[in-house]
Amino acid sequence: MSITLINSFVVPPEKEDEFLRTWRGTIAHFASAPGFIHARLHRNTGLNDTTFQYVNVALWEDVDSYRAVFRNFTPAGQRIPGVEPHAGLFEVLMEVEPSTVDS
Amino acid sequence: MSITLINSFVVPPEKEDEFLRTWRGTIAHFASAPGFIHARLHRNTGLNDTTFQYVNVALWEDVDSYRAVFRNFTPAGQRIPGVEPHAGLFEVLMEVEPSTVDS
Repeated sequence: MSITLINSFVVPPEKEDEFLRTWRGTIAHFASAPGFIHARLHRNTGLNDTTFQYVNVALWEDVDSYRAVFRNFTPAGQRIPGVEPHAGLFEVLMEVEPSTVDS
Repeated sequence: MSITLINSFVVPPEKEDEFLRTWRGTIAHFASAPGFIHARLHRNTGLNDTTFQYVNVALWEDVDSYRAVFRNFTPAGQRIPGVEPHAGLFEVLMEVEPSTVDS
């Protein structure tokens, strides 16, 4: 079963450059791993809730592939003082497409 | 510019049924709104960080479309005591596809 990593990061403003630099290194490692399908890094626009400045949504073929990456690797982004990752593993419960309303 | 809503929900176990019921009502309303493109509700598998039990990732054509929905509507899921939404509006900063590593 494919699995979605949703990693929500609290990143203090003064740590943003360092966070992005290390995240790029981390994702390069992930992108070459067996089972990696796709990742999308989102940046908060500041237009609504700003708890998390960055959110990575990544699709993996299965949880074992995801876990295998960590056997010989610690993501640098998680070691930056002040940066708090929340890396949950999710299944898709519902897909919603646009609908038209009967009037 | 299209915009991604990422809404991360803290949901106490005893509130899950109520949360899902009201979320279905909310999303039905959203799915009929102009500018709504797609939504995907994720459920935490419990295999890693479990801060957020549910995360909705939704794509909208622009921020104005998203905001217009709230003019005459308050999402019920945000009114359940104990349920904490974190609804941030994001732009996609980076798309990552699988790569092959030179050896």
